[in-house]
Amino acid sequence: MTSRVAIIGTGITEFGELWDESFRSLITKAGTEAINDSRLEGDEIEALYVGSMSPGLFSGQEHVSSLVADHAGLKGVPATRVEAACSSGALALREAYLSIKSGEMDYVIAGGVEKMTDIPSNSATVALMGAGDQEWEAFKGATFPGLYALMATRHMYEYGTTLEQISQVSVKSHENAALNPKAQFRFKVSLEDVMNSTPVADPLRLLHCSPITDGAAAVVLASEEKAREICDNPIWINASSCSTDTIALHDREYVSRTDAATRAAGKAYRRAGIKPQDVDFAEVHDCFSIAEIMAIESLGFCKLGEGGRFTEEGETSLSGSIPINTSGGLKGKGHPVGATGIAQAVEAVAQLRGEAGKRQVEKAKIGLTHNVGGSGGTCVIHILSGDLK
Amino acid sequence: MTSRVAIIGTGITEFGELWDESFRSLITKAGTEAINDSRLEGDEIEALYVGSMSPGLFSGQEHVSSLVADHAGLKGVPATRVEAACSSGALALREAYLSIKSGEMDYVIAGGVEKMTDIPSNSATVALMGAGDQEWEAFKGATFPGLYALMATRHMYEYGTTLEQISQVSVKSHENAALNPKAQFRFKVSLEDVMNSTPVADPLRLLHCSPITDGAAAVVLASEEKAREICDNPIWINASSCSTDTIALHDREYVSRTDAATRAAGKAYRRAGIKPQDVDFAEVHDCFSIAEIMAIESLGFCKLGEGGRFTEEGETSLSGSIPINTSGGLKGKGHPVGATGIAQAVEAVAQLRGEAGKRQVEKAKIGLTHNVGGSGGTCVIHILSGDLK
Repeated sequence: MTSRVAIIGTGITEFGELWDESFRSLITKAGTEAINDSRLEGDEIEALYVGSMSPGLFSGQEHVSSLVADHAGLKGVPATRVEAACSSGALALREAYLSIKSGEMDYVIAGGVEKMTDIPSNSATVALMGAGDQEWEAFKGATFPGLYALMATRHMYEYGTTLEQISQVSVKSHENAALNPKAQFRFKVSLEDVMNSTPVADPLRLLHCSPITDGAAAVVLASEEKAREICDNPIWINASSCSTDTIALHDREYVSRTDAATRAAGKAYRRAGIKPQDVDFAEVHDCFSIAEIMAIESLGFCKLGEGGRFTEEGETSLSGSIPINTSGGLKGKGHPVGATGIAQAVEAVAQLRGEAGKRQVEKAKIGLTHNVGGSGGTCVIHILSGDLK
Repeated sequence: MTSRVAIIGTGITEFGELWDESFRSLITKAGTEAINDSRLEGDEIEALYVGSMSPGLFSGQEHVSSLVADHAGLKGVPATRVEAACSSGALALREAYLSIKSGEMDYVIAGGVEKMTDIPSNSATVALMGAGDQEWEAFKGATFPGLYALMATRHMYEYGTTLEQISQVSVKSHENAALNPKAQFRFKVSLEDVMNSTPVADPLRLLHCSPITDGAAAVVLASEEKAREICDNPIWINASSCSTDTIALHDREYVSRTDAATRAAGKAYRRAGIKPQDVDFAEVHDCFSIAEIMAIESLGFCKLGEGGRFTEEGETSLSGSIPINTSGGLKGKGHPVGATGIAQAVEAVAQLRGEAGKRQVEKAKIGLTHNVGGSGGTCVIHILSGDLK
C-alpha cells in the first residue's frame, strides 16, 4: 500500500453554454491538459475514472468510460464511470485515490464531465431530478429548486436566517467568479440584483440557483513514490471520505441540516488529523445558495444555524477568515454536474500551488472540497495540502 | 494492504419479467441474502458498490448509490454506483475489491441490478444502445443485435463458423438454465428450435439473443484477515482485471475478435499465476450466442476461430472439458444488464463451494468470470478459487 496519494496535474475547460463542444471533446481537452500539466506522456496512466451524472438522459450515451478511454487515446486502460448524481466528480476522485492506495497502480487519471445544454432546459430539470427519489419525490412533482426551497424555508424558520443572508452567498460567488477566467458568469451581481431576480421556487430566486452548464475537469493522481520522483509540488490527498443519507428529503430527521456532510467531514478531519479551524479555504457545493450556508455549518466553519450571519459578516469572502468558493462556486463558475467535484479539486490545487491569480488566498496551506449528490443523499469530502513544513 | 480479498456471502433474486418488483426491492433482496449468507449483521459493512447500466433511461432514477444504501438500511455507508454498460456488475465487484485492497476497509458489499421491463421493449433497445457510440453508431441506426450480427457474419466468413455451431451455444445455455431455479428460461430448446426461430438481425435469430430481464445479485467481500476469522469457506479473488477497446465496433482492427477480453485475460492469468487450461469452468458474456464463441477464443480455452467447432463438440457443456455458463448464461438465465457481472460471480462461488446442485461441475477448483460492456468496449475478468491444497 502506498502511504499517500498526490495530485500531480490538473486540467479544466471553460465552463458555460458551449455549443461547439461535445461530451467527448470536453473531457478529452480537460484530460489532455491534466496529463500535460503532470509532465507524463500519457502512456503511464494505468486506470481512468470518469464522473458523469446522466449522459444517458442528456445525450443517450452510457458506457462513457470506454468512450473517454477511446477518445483520449487511452484505449486498453481500465476505465470506470462513477455516478452519485452531482457528487459523481468527487466520487470519481475518491475511487481513483482508492485504486492507487490498493497498490495495484501508480498513475491514475480522474475526470468529470457533463454536457447539459443539448436538450431543452425543462428536460434538463427532469434529468437532474434523477438525483432525487423517483417514486416518492419526482412522481409527486418535486424538482430540485423545490426541494432546496423547502430546506431554505426551514432554515429561515429554525434559525432566523434571512433572504438577504442567503443572497449574500450569490453576491460573493459572483465576486469570485469575476476573477476566474474559466467561470460561466464572469461578472458581479448586487444584493438588489439577487433579491429582485425572477422567483423560481419560493423563497429561492433565479440568482440563488446554479446554472445549466457544459464543462469538464481532470486530475492526474500518483502514488507517493512516483509523485516524489516526477513532481516538484505534489498536492497530497490527506483524506477522502464519503457518507450517505436517505435519498428523499422527507425521510430525514432534519431538513435544515446536511447530516451526510457532517458525518463525512468528521471522518475526513479525523483521517487528516486536523480540525475545521485548520482549513484555510474550501470549495463547497452551492447548487443553491442556501446549500452553501448548510455546508459551512456541517463542515464546522461556524456553528449550526449561524451560516447566514457568518456569510453576511464577510467571513467567507476572499479576504475573510475562511474563503469559500474562490472559484466562483457552482453559482458563479457554473455546475456541469459530473465535472463539479473534480473542478473543486482543480481550484484547490491552484490555491495550494499559489497559482490562483487574482483570487489567490493568502497562506493557503490546507484546502477542503465538499461535493453533494442530490438534496444530500451523498456527500464526498477531500482534504488537500502541499508539503507542510 | 490486505494481501487477498475473499467473497464471503452471495445473494441473487429470481431473474425474469418481475412485474411485482421494483429496482429498489430487487437489489435490497439480493443484498440482504448476501449479508445473511456472510453471517454478518450488516452494520459491519463499510462501503457499498452498485453496478447498474441505465436506471436513468429505464426509470428516470440516477443516484442509485444513495437509494440502495437508504433502502438496504445502510444509510451513512459510503456508496458508489459504477457503470460500464453491460459490464457494470463486474466493474462494481472490481471497485469493491480495490477498496479492500486499499486497506481503508475490511467489509464491502457489491451489488448489481437492472429493472428493464417497466418500459416498452423498443425503448429498452434504445436505452441499451447507450452502450454503443451514440454519434457514430446509434445515430446511424445501429442496434446491438445489428452490431453482433456484423461480428457473427465476419466470424463465419473468416473462420467458417456455421450457424449450427452458433445455435449450439443457445442449446447448451438452455440445457443449463433448465437446471437453475433462478433462471428466466428454465426449459430446453432444440437445435431446430434455435435455427427456425424468428430472424432478428441476419444471421442472428431470436434464440441467439439474450432477453430483457429484471434481476439483482450481490456479494459480500472481506479482507483476508476478516475472511479467515468469520468464514469457513472463503472464495478468493485471485485476479481482477479490466481492459477497454474503442467503443464503436467499426474503429477496431478486427470485428471478429474481442481484444479487450484478450488483454484483460492475459493480465488476469498473469496475476493469478495460472494458464487457461487451469480454469475448471467459466461464466462468460453471451449477450448473443456468437459472443460466447468469441469469448472462449479470447480467454484461450480454444484457438482463435475454433470456438464454433469447440462448442459443437461439446467441450463447453456441463460434462465437457471446460463447462461454460453452467448458470444458463445471459441467454438462458437472463440478462438484467447491471446485475449480470455479479450474478456470474454468484454462480462461480456456488460452483467452488460445491453448492451448484444439478449443474455442479466436478472438481471445480478454479473459476473465471468474463463480463463485457457494449460490443466489447469494456471487458472485466475475475479469477476465483477456494483454498487450493
